Amino acid sequence: MSAEPESRNAVSKPIHFHLEATDQAARLGAISTSHGVIRTPAFMPVGTAATVKAMFPECVKATGTDVLLGNTYHLMLRPGAERVARLGGLHQFMNWNGPILTDSGGFQVMSLAKLRKISEQGVIFQSHIDGATHELTPERSIEIQVLLGADIVMAFDECTPFPCKREEAQESMELSMRWAERSKTAFGSQTHHALYGIVQGGIHPDLRERSAKALLDIGFDGYAVGGLAVGEGQEMMLKTLEQTVPCLPADKPRYLMGVGTPDDILSAVERGIDMFDCVMPTRSGRHGQAFTWEGRVNLRNAVHADDPRPLDAASACPAANSYSRAYLHHLVKSGEYLAAMLLTWANVHFYQDFMQAIRTAIAENRFQDFARETRARLGSQDEDRGGAPVI
Amino acid sequence: MSAEPESRNAVSKPIHFHLEATDQAARLGAISTSHGVIRTPAFMPVGTAATVKAMFPECVKATGTDVLLGNTYHLMLRPGAERVARLGGLHQFMNWNGPILTDSGGFQVMSLAKLRKISEQGVIFQSHIDGATHELTPERSIEIQVLLGADIVMAFDECTPFPCKREEAQESMELSMRWAERSKTAFGSQTHHALYGIVQGGIHPDLRERSAKALLDIGFDGYAVGGLAVGEGQEMMLKTLEQTVPCLPADKPRYLMGVGTPDDILSAVERGIDMFDCVMPTRSGRHGQAFTWEGRVNLRNAVHADDPRPLDAASACPAANSYSRAYLHHLVKSGEYLAAMLLTWANVHFYQDFMQAIRTAIAENRFQDFARETRARLGSQDEDRGGAPVI
Repeated sequence: MSAEPESRNAVSKPIHFHLEATDQAARLGAISTSHGVIRTPAFMPVGTAATVKAMFPECVKATGTDVLLGNTYHLMLRPGAERVARLGGLHQFMNWNGPILTDSGGFQVMSLAKLRKISEQGVIFQSHIDGATHELTPERSIEIQVLLGADIVMAFDECTPFPCKREEAQESMELSMRWAERSKTAFGSQTHHALYGIVQGGIHPDLRERSAKALLDIGFDGYAVGGLAVGEGQEMMLKTLEQTVPCLPADKPRYLMGVGTPDDILSAVERGIDMFDCVMPTRSGRHGQAFTWEGRVNLRNAVHADDPRPLDAASACPAANSYSRAYLHHLVKSGEYLAAMLLTWANVHFYQDFMQAIRTAIAENRFQDFARETRARLGSQDEDRGGAPVI
Repeated sequence: MSAEPESRNAVSKPIHFHLEATDQAARLGAISTSHGVIRTPAFMPVGTAATVKAMFPECVKATGTDVLLGNTYHLMLRPGAERVARLGGLHQFMNWNGPILTDSGGFQVMSLAKLRKISEQGVIFQSHIDGATHELTPERSIEIQVLLGADIVMAFDECTPFPCKREEAQESMELSMRWAERSKTAFGSQTHHALYGIVQGGIHPDLRERSAKALLDIGFDGYAVGGLAVGEGQEMMLKTLEQTVPCLPADKPRYLMGVGTPDDILSAVERGIDMFDCVMPTRSGRHGQAFTWEGRVNLRNAVHADDPRPLDAASACPAANSYSRAYLHHLVKSGEYLAAMLLTWANVHFYQDFMQAIRTAIAENRFQDFARETRARLGSQDEDRGGAPVI
């Protein structure tokens, strides 16, 4: 799609970020990649093991999803990066022709692997699947992501845990910055892959600022904010964002990793974030929970057993408009595959509808009003906020 | 669909069976119901709990499926027949507008329920879900099936176990015939539901004959052969079919319950059977096994890990023609939902392609040749017959 404009330039760029409009700090834009355009603010469904769990790829596309996130940690262990490369790369392997961003593996090594050992060199760990020993370094992480064929490659970092002492946050951030430099060197110059750096520094404004400056000195195609949504709470997350985003360049995409709820996304867009990823819509779908414009609905709840209404009659998604809540309740209670299939579909569709509404509101310069109205609406029947008893 | 022709008759019939062609004993036909036409020989995917496991209903339809089977036992326990009726019936509940046949619950009570107690009256049993006590009688089974809105209702019977003594097979058959009479009485005259009787009698030709005669005296819209494929082996099953089918009227549909493999279906069509149901394509799909024209393929097998070929490039099914065996192997090994979704889809599609090929062969009066060639082809790479090592 972007092959033509690229060929006109002497030096082709892997991605191009076009900022179309701003509404206070909120930004409307588009990231052009060799696999298509990512409309921002963008939400990336998580396709951990080369599949968005319980969804056909064409169905993911039809929800309005522009870009997927793939997990380096999972894919390096199974089926293996070299194997995926031999089979034509991750796009071909999983039948997804749109853009793909891969994480660096750093976060999952910390949260999933057994017997981790971190050194200056990298991380040695045991696979959670078979206990085999593996090593991830900045160089190997970049190599894997390029083998997978990711459109957007993430620098290898250490996700600073929360809570942790300032001293530890600083050491961790500084290690991540040295790894960011090694990531950039290993990446070299690529024409079909872009590289993002990741700001760390915990909840400390000065560390975040130093981290952002270090990354800017190295130079990346986009900048992510990492180490948030790890237990610090929404207030602290937003405060840290407010201090971090102004340190990032206006002409590059900004990505808040692992976030979040619809409310989190509104608040982060309000603070200038362009990209998001989260397992929430997919994981919730597998656990019987649906996202709607009236809040979250827990289909396990007995109150739905005789309810002939669909999840959302106004939705364009068949999973939300064509099946009764009674039927969905029955499927969830029965542990049927179709429960996860329908609710994941409805949730990803909702998230993409939500992102489209955000983009429209920014384009029409009414994002603040939209955010306020949407927050009120999302909480109106939210079963996770006491809307109905869970039985 | 059949509402028009029905309205022309003084006495409307719930179904109409039209025999279009025969090729020796094999029959090509069509059963008209108020929810559409069932082309025979027909294969009914099993939709136990109001869902064909791991498939969207529109996807089931697109495979060429005309009719689904629903399980009375499961649906009476959860979500309950009265609830389904309040919600508009099973078709509306599960978003399936085509014909539905429901079994009587007799078979599942014997295979799934705890603490069964059989008497002349019926069966008292404990739910496998919550241990609650329930009763199924011919009257209640018919009531449930009519509440569900089944196009084809099955008489309540006892599935005679195998092996069993001749005396027990006789007693069981005679009980089933008394229950068949009570089923007919309870059913009364219906204009939107048809009622099938079920021949029992184990592997004893004279008992089968007496059972068929008893059912003919009562009079049904179709006749099923029950109590087969329960461990007696294919040879004995086919021998029993050969003795039973000639006792059934030519102008009514014949249904072999719970069968079977493609080879079983060929052999039963050869002996005059019109309808089949089996969990094989769906259950196998959830266990990593694919049906193809070259035999069964076990995707768990390591031999597929690097195989870029699709399951069947010639298939019209995206699950069979658009994903590599390597990817399917990866999904199966990773326990991903998508593995079950794709393999179930491919299998149901294969079964319906297979049934269409059978119907075409009968129409063209070459069923014997087709059956011979297909048996050779199906066995050519069958991994369940030693085609490749399972690791």
